[in-house]
Amino acid sequence: MKIICTKSDLLKSSNIALRAVPVRSTMPILECILIDVSDNGIKFTTNDMELGIDTCVNGQVIETGIVAVDAKLFSEIIRKLPDSDVTVSSDENYNITILCDKSKFVLSGNSGEDFPFLPAVEKDECISISQFTLRQVIQQTIFSIASNENNKVMTGELFEISGNNFRVISLDGHRISIRRVELKESYENKKVIVPGKTLSEICKILTGEMDDNVSIFIARNHVVFELTDTTVVSRLIEGEYFNVDQMISNDYETKVKIKKQLLTDCIDRATLFVREGDKKPIIIDIQDGRLNLNIDSPFGAMDENIDIEKEGKDLMIGFNPRFMMDALKVIDDEYVTLYFTNPKSPCYIRDEDKNYTYLILPVNFIR
Amino acid sequence: MKIICTKSDLLKSSNIALRAVPVRSTMPILECILIDVSDNGIKFTTNDMELGIDTCVNGQVIETGIVAVDAKLFSEIIRKLPDSDVTVSSDENYNITILCDKSKFVLSGNSGEDFPFLPAVEKDECISISQFTLRQVIQQTIFSIASNENNKVMTGELFEISGNNFRVISLDGHRISIRRVELKESYENKKVIVPGKTLSEICKILTGEMDDNVSIFIARNHVVFELTDTTVVSRLIEGEYFNVDQMISNDYETKVKIKKQLLTDCIDRATLFVREGDKKPIIIDIQDGRLNLNIDSPFGAMDENIDIEKEGKDLMIGFNPRFMMDALKVIDDEYVTLYFTNPKSPCYIRDEDKNYTYLILPVNFIR
Repeated sequence: MKIICTKSDLLKSSNIALRAVPVRSTMPILECILIDVSDNGIKFTTNDMELGIDTCVNGQVIETGIVAVDAKLFSEIIRKLPDSDVTVSSDENYNITILCDKSKFVLSGNSGEDFPFLPAVEKDECISISQFTLRQVIQQTIFSIASNENNKVMTGELFEISGNNFRVISLDGHRISIRRVELKESYENKKVIVPGKTLSEICKILTGEMDDNVSIFIARNHVVFELTDTTVVSRLIEGEYFNVDQMISNDYETKVKIKKQLLTDCIDRATLFVREGDKKPIIIDIQDGRLNLNIDSPFGAMDENIDIEKEGKDLMIGFNPRFMMDALKVIDDEYVTLYFTNPKSPCYIRDEDKNYTYLILPVNFIR
Repeated sequence: MKIICTKSDLLKSSNIALRAVPVRSTMPILECILIDVSDNGIKFTTNDMELGIDTCVNGQVIETGIVAVDAKLFSEIIRKLPDSDVTVSSDENYNITILCDKSKFVLSGNSGEDFPFLPAVEKDECISISQFTLRQVIQQTIFSIASNENNKVMTGELFEISGNNFRVISLDGHRISIRRVELKESYENKKVIVPGKTLSEICKILTGEMDDNVSIFIARNHVVFELTDTTVVSRLIEGEYFNVDQMISNDYETKVKIKKQLLTDCIDRATLFVREGDKKPIIIDIQDGRLNLNIDSPFGAMDENIDIEKEGKDLMIGFNPRFMMDALKVIDDEYVTLYFTNPKSPCYIRDEDKNYTYLILPVNFIR
């Protein structure tokens, strides 16, 4: 095979392809990019057996053919080339030559015969959403997936479609994050669990443009994301997701409206007294017109007041400061509203329209 | 003691003081900032027994007194405070209270009785140099000090003053770096070895402004750097430095003028084939009008030509690419000149006026 592409086009495509290359694998072929040059054009394929990516490369086909090349080395070479046209070719022994200006690289590739094809997924109904929105809802929820594999379904996020409502939900046993967006059309009801790894990689590929759309196809065992030049195929996580709506209550005894920045800055200062792995809560004392936040540790103590608007009962309650911060950081509003019931019940951060709901369990504290 | 300072003044001074705080120490007092509030003003002192810093803090003295506080925690609290006035006070039990807007922090400090004073250094002749220049010559040479302590003098840099010439020299057994600047005045001849640690910390404190000066005092066992509000005192390394001028030759058989950027980009690409700890050289083949650089490794091969102006004999010679890169990166000229004698003799990179000289030993290679 032989192709001529600009350095920037090659780099763009290899950066996308890299997202499905495992860091280390028992199957060396998975650490390769499959370069498939046909009369239809140039295609890079990568596959880590859970996540697979196909991406079309802009460029000129001189000679068709297929070759597999070490993904990391190939993309690093491309990255370091001068900004110029690059010729990539392979011979009958799968030696790959990269030419650019006065530089010449030779790498040994392989036939790619044992490269695992991406699964063929039946694409029936296509859900269309802007790349910007999909990236947003993932980034606004992905922090609360479980990091350990004890309960597989908790390592993914629930994608729930009902009519024109699209909800993305994650939970890790201490908190629940829910984002809801309205789709332009209505679709058949669906619930699937998408692996967290897939979602964090797809975020890096999505352009984040409001005008670029992504088409999502949901099949029995797979989900497919179709972008302009790129197709991402991922396995789904098998199993039944939690009935989150049953876990959530709309009742409350105390409602607090607070300037978000003041609260995050204050919690940020409090975390100075929390050491890695220590379960020290921050204690929030809510009274009329002011929220007092304090923390006491062997290293020192902090005490701070923030002006609030409060409805309902006074309350004193403890939280893991990180869980509070994670939720607050992904909310764009200037003011947030917090709902509490009692020191043993969760705190809810949600907007009027329930476009977002963050549930955080409290931590016991002794005074 | 009690002081009122702006957050930014406190932060600036504590960041400077932090530079002489050891990461871990068997003497806990060394992990503290000594806050000394007298009628003369506010002073922060830190000392890791090799390097000591005194810095004056802008602010209002309400009550004099001395207290020592954990340096890291104190400066992290200051960093996270709102941009406002900060009141720092201590009581008779050395509890330190930090107040800023509606935030209150309490830390336990100590009397600072056992805090080691900075050594009193006899300051006779003062060498004056711009902060910009001092920072430059350090950054342009410090990469070639030895990292292991086998030969203590190699872990520092030679500061050599002769007349109005100031030379800074480092060497690590594979290479020598020399920078020379002219001082505005002439001074008594002096040669001292300043620890590398001191130099890298002083670089972080120097403003880098052309118009700000630093005064250097050299005593028997210490060197003192006096900046506007800050004094840095460091031990010197005892021992005799190498006679570097004897190691350096001005003879050559091959002289090459090359565009620096082309050479660094090319070496950068070649390093893709060098793995950590492997001693693979890059091989440079110099002929009329072109320099060919190539490297061959189990992962692949690279071959590239660069246009040059050459005088003298053809030559083929091998180098550790990192040593070449380190020197080239700190040279600001568009074109550099390389001098070679034979494949077993060092390469010199130097300018006409010998404001810089970089000597790099070659690496044997087998063809």
